[in-house]
Amino acid sequence: MTSENHAPVSVIGLGSMGSALAQAFLDAGHPTTVWNRSPGKADKLLASGATRAATVAEAVSAGDLIVICVLDYQAMREIVGSAGDALDGRVIVNLTSGTPEEARETATWAAGRGVRYLDGAIMAVPDMIGGADTLIFYGGSKAVCAAHASVLTAIAGGGAYLGEDAGLPSLYDVALLGLMWTTWAGLLHSLALVGAGGVPASAFLPYAQAWFEHVIGPEIPVIAGQVDQGVYPDADSALGMQAIAIEHLLDASRAQQVDAGLPQFLKDRTEQAIRRGHAGDGFGSLFEVLRRPSGECPERAEVCRN
Amino acid sequence: MTSENHAPVSVIGLGSMGSALAQAFLDAGHPTTVWNRSPGKADKLLASGATRAATVAEAVSAGDLIVICVLDYQAMREIVGSAGDALDGRVIVNLTSGTPEEARETATWAAGRGVRYLDGAIMAVPDMIGGADTLIFYGGSKAVCAAHASVLTAIAGGGAYLGEDAGLPSLYDVALLGLMWTTWAGLLHSLALVGAGGVPASAFLPYAQAWFEHVIGPEIPVIAGQVDQGVYPDADSALGMQAIAIEHLLDASRAQQVDAGLPQFLKDRTEQAIRRGHAGDGFGSLFEVLRRPSGECPERAEVCRN
Repeated sequence: MTSENHAPVSVIGLGSMGSALAQAFLDAGHPTTVWNRSPGKADKLLASGATRAATVAEAVSAGDLIVICVLDYQAMREIVGSAGDALDGRVIVNLTSGTPEEARETATWAAGRGVRYLDGAIMAVPDMIGGADTLIFYGGSKAVCAAHASVLTAIAGGGAYLGEDAGLPSLYDVALLGLMWTTWAGLLHSLALVGAGGVPASAFLPYAQAWFEHVIGPEIPVIAGQVDQGVYPDADSALGMQAIAIEHLLDASRAQQVDAGLPQFLKDRTEQAIRRGHAGDGFGSLFEVLRRPSGECPERAEVCRN
Repeated sequence: MTSENHAPVSVIGLGSMGSALAQAFLDAGHPTTVWNRSPGKADKLLASGATRAATVAEAVSAGDLIVICVLDYQAMREIVGSAGDALDGRVIVNLTSGTPEEARETATWAAGRGVRYLDGAIMAVPDMIGGADTLIFYGGSKAVCAAHASVLTAIAGGGAYLGEDAGLPSLYDVALLGLMWTTWAGLLHSLALVGAGGVPASAFLPYAQAWFEHVIGPEIPVIAGQVDQGVYPDADSALGMQAIAIEHLLDASRAQQVDAGLPQFLKDRTEQAIRRGHAGDGFGSLFEVLRRPSGECPERAEVCRN
């Protein structure tokens, strides 16, 4: 007999993330069955009380909830598919990383095998698994998510269900990662720029941090509001004026012989927005160019679809 | 007679920024002489107690300190140059926006005319001029900056002297603006991506803000420290792994038919860093690519110099 709070779970895939997931279930008192292609990875978890499944079918049958986290969606489908008829009626939460399209295709694939499917994207590193604020996005069957919400709390206290579209977790995931990488790339470009002028990162850092906190960050909700309204007012500095300063950034990057890719991107898209009538709008109006790059065809082929 | 705190100043150029500068000097009790190419712009300041100079030479002679803020460095040199011999021995603080090269050239130009020169970059909008925390970067003569520091407090309480190189204020300026635009462009791309999946900006915003505050921001000092050390350790996710997720971001951007320029940039530079031996390093190792783009020549001509 199992209470709701000690429902048996299975974890398939014991890389660093999968192992952290299994350990969190064990820590929360869930009977936990584990499977990995190379069985040695289970040893530490077995010492913590986990049960080793000899086959994927055995793992799939052992848990009320089956959590899988492997290299990619193709590996996920090959592994899970090997369980055959054992899949029918089982609940699978797929935390493998991929694209929204792969998640949607896999949801369809799972439905065809009688699997009740939830997709998820882990917004954390392994060390953070089990934390009260740790975020995992879920998408797919709302009924599955609701039925297993308390069990899923064991791996991430800050889980968030986004909707029936199984592609939403991956979509949010790549969007947040893109924001992260782009911001860090912007920082690294700035550090390269001042570095070429003999300025160590430590000297520039206090200004970058203050700028980030007091200028860049506070504008984020303002820009989001403009995007939803579809209007991009700017009281202080219209895009036509900012284009001049972006030109300075590009000139300085070239003069200092650092990578000019980001300034060139900003210049191209700003000019495109101005050609589309946004010269008097704020920087937020670049949204119209980014969401609909096919309105014009500048030099980069990959953004030109029609 | 004038006390140090009520030294006469002149302001040349009365656009929205120049007018705010003049008003701040007036508010702080400085006798303030103003000049603008089209004289009508001075009217409001005259009503506040400013004195109108009939010529640039008159403005240059009237102030212990001459502050100029006009369209660009070329206009600055034309206007100031028209004062001729009146320039000899005068102190000019040039707050016009431009590139580090233009600032350095103008410092040399000023020295040739006997002008004691300070370059500056205003990190604020006109409404913020005169504020206790408002930031203006200064570069050039340290003696000039020190002698007039208390007067300059009237326009920006948070002034910062960066060094003898007159190009430093513009360098810091474009670097901070580049960080700002790049971050906002990253946000707009993320909003375009989720928006194409039917997600309003308001739904994504709370996650973006939390991510910004708890994940993106805290890494900024870590990355700066890595840059100064020239080593880029990464405990959780090496560049070789992140490259896979960047590929997901690119695939998702293409599938959702939004602009793929930023993901493509991230992919190109990440691959370049991996080819240079950084597969096991963290994201910070992209610094080595951005500061020295000529190490390899990928598709973008503008980053290839040797």
